[in-house]
Amino acid sequence: MAIVTLLTDFGEADAYVGQMKGAILSVSPSATLVDLAHAISPQDVRAGAFLLWTAVAAFPPGSIHVAVVDPGVGSARRAIAAQSARGDRLVGPDNGLLVPALEKLGGAIAVVELSNSQFWRPRVSKTFHGRDLFGPVAGHLDRGVELQALGEPVPELERPFSIPVPQAAGEALRGAVIHVDRFGTLITNLPGERLGADFVLVLNGRRILGHREAQYESVREGSLVGLVGSSGLVEIAVRNGSAAAILGLGVGAAVAAEPVERAGIR
Amino acid sequence: MAIVTLLTDFGEADAYVGQMKGAILSVSPSATLVDLAHAISPQDVRAGAFLLWTAVAAFPPGSIHVAVVDPGVGSARRAIAAQSARGDRLVGPDNGLLVPALEKLGGAIAVVELSNSQFWRPRVSKTFHGRDLFGPVAGHLDRGVELQALGEPVPELERPFSIPVPQAAGEALRGAVIHVDRFGTLITNLPGERLGADFVLVLNGRRILGHREAQYESVREGSLVGLVGSSGLVEIAVRNGSAAAILGLGVGAAVAAEPVERAGIR
Amino acid sequence: MAIVTLLTDFGEADAYVGQMKGAILSVSPSATLVDLAHAISPQDVRAGAFLLWTAVAAFPPGSIHVAVVDPGVGSARRAIAAQSARGDRLVGPDNGLLVPALEKLGGAIAVVELSNSQFWRPRVSKTFHGRDLFGPVAGHLDRGVELQALGEPVPELERPFSIPVPQAAGEALRGAVIHVDRFGTLITNLPGERLGADFVLVLNGRRILGHREAQYESVREGSLVGLVGSSGLVEIAVRNGSAAAILGLGVGAAVAAEPVERAGIR
Repeated sequence: MAIVTLLTDFGEADAYVGQMKGAILSVSPSATLVDLAHAISPQDVRAGAFLLWTAVAAFPPGSIHVAVVDPGVGSARRAIAAQSARGDRLVGPDNGLLVPALEKLGGAIAVVELSNSQFWRPRVSKTFHGRDLFGPVAGHLDRGVELQALGEPVPELERPFSIPVPQAAGEALRGAVIHVDRFGTLITNLPGERLGADFVLVLNGRRILGHREAQYESVREGSLVGLVGSSGLVEIAVRNGSAAAILGLGVGAAVAAEPVERAGIR
Repeated sequence: MAIVTLLTDFGEADAYVGQMKGAILSVSPSATLVDLAHAISPQDVRAGAFLLWTAVAAFPPGSIHVAVVDPGVGSARRAIAAQSARGDRLVGPDNGLLVPALEKLGGAIAVVELSNSQFWRPRVSKTFHGRDLFGPVAGHLDRGVELQALGEPVPELERPFSIPVPQAAGEALRGAVIHVDRFGTLITNLPGERLGADFVLVLNGRRILGHREAQYESVREGSLVGLVGSSGLVEIAVRNGSAAAILGLGVGAAVAAEPVERAGIR
Repeated sequence: MAIVTLLTDFGEADAYVGQMKGAILSVSPSATLVDLAHAISPQDVRAGAFLLWTAVAAFPPGSIHVAVVDPGVGSARRAIAAQSARGDRLVGPDNGLLVPALEKLGGAIAVVELSNSQFWRPRVSKTFHGRDLFGPVAGHLDRGVELQALGEPVPELERPFSIPVPQAAGEALRGAVIHVDRFGTLITNLPGERLGADFVLVLNGRRILGHREAQYESVREGSLVGLVGSSGLVEIAVRNGSAAAILGLGVGAAVAAEPVERAGIR
């Protein structure tokens, strides 16, 4: 038995997540279910892909991750399952949602289209594959069904987008804000491991000192600080406040990291 | 051991749902708990009844569904448990909340009042029967206690409301929007099985083409489409948008389904 | 195996709670996880302490409660685990968050600093001790590790705040609103057991009749009522409405309870 995680854009106002869990438990009654996120903006596949990427490494190898942010449900888009190098299984639509998480887990060693209807619910709706297709398939994987039994191999995953990669520009590294979390912390695509112990972040003309070993209380109440967050990415935070609100910035804002000397702050 | 689902109007801001789970697990430590919905508007028994109705069929026969939307908590309203024809057990206040779900599951074959205090918490508050009465009773059902042991038979359930039934008017079927989901999709009380493969929906003077086999991507981005949703009911959706916002309509709005020929759209 | 509850200010917008659960399950795969609350305002340690206090007694003795509202994460504040007189284990930052719940459970009989790194994740971030430290420690406790193995004894817990204690003033008891729940009910720090069967609550110059045995339907629709809520504290509620909205009051508002005779309402 493995852990089965769920990430969707189904929200909390309806009983869609509960129905999907019912479908999983109908197949595998003792599955261990864990919610990753359900408040993703409707149909925001990129946001779902990012949150899935942040979360999967916290689970033991062999876990099953079902992700459904699926504007194309019922259309010709493929439904897939993929196996990672370390044995995790990812289940969801072939719309890019699973790609960053798969790469985080060492890449896919097998991908299949979910074409074998014996692992679906007997009657599949056109609009709710989380309950009728992805959920039951996850339940069967949890019971020990092999990935290869679920359908035909898929040679190539769809990659309609990618999480933007930072670009070196002289001594600086240029990137962008890719997520704003609940605390208003701006999370960038700049990997902390490519920066020195101290660095300067430039956002919207403003210079913010950052430290690889900083935490939120490294600065005074209400002050901005750059640090390396829990996913290994550079973040801009405010002690007991919201960096997004104070800076008036959000997803997509350009950010550059420079060595401290160059910025003349040291 | 069965699955125990929870549906309440307790929201996420407090720890009420957690306390109710503690009460269930105090009785049945290995119960499998599944949240159906907790964001129902305070005391909106009809909305709770609808969401419960949408969800129960996704769970295996024999499941236990505890529902608490209970403006009359602590008053003379009865606390009940009911058993469905296929073996499910529903637990909650006798205020209409459980009725549509019971009908969905084939009707009740037994109903009892929860009068036997040996299955309650030792001390029952006046305001939180989810924790003190319904939760513990669900735990005892999960451990194998028979419905009949919980209290005296109830001859007739209260039915203070019902989900409105659509009315035939010539070739048309007249009904109403009964739920707006997280995606802004308008869910009506019109059963898809009573319509042809293609139909026209008339809302607020506007005509929208519908298809039994449609899905959200059947139309262009931002366009309205009628379809049969995952509960078997006719829905009005917008591809990658909110039908509720675009039409300015919500629960209670009148809707009629007509054959395509009559509407002159074909 | 015990129950492991989680209370945080991580919200629903990210996958932080899911990552923390992944860390617990990585250590103890069959842990029974229960969410208490995650919508606490960011860094509101007092609100977290109150909700934890309301919830712990609903769980069986021996449960493990992990609470993370932790503005000082990564700084010099201690990470601790404490054992209650009745065998519960509480895990979290030493910032006052755990204190009221520990007192509710009979007081702490042992407290340790989480200094033994063999029970942490191999790599601990500066900003996410829920995943990297508290979660894994809870997993080890669930597997049977003794509290004393986790680190050095702590002689004294930090108590930077306390839930305000009501003050007797003649025949009256003076206190304050300490929480507003999802229903708009004002929850005070006045213990119902210190009042008579009937009492008068004075808020903002207004007098509201209260009864120890009242429930929400004791008054007419839309009317105010004082009662003793499910935590044993006096509440001001409105039948099918929000007392907070009607009175325009919230956390911190002064409230006094007087005998009915004195208030001249009887």
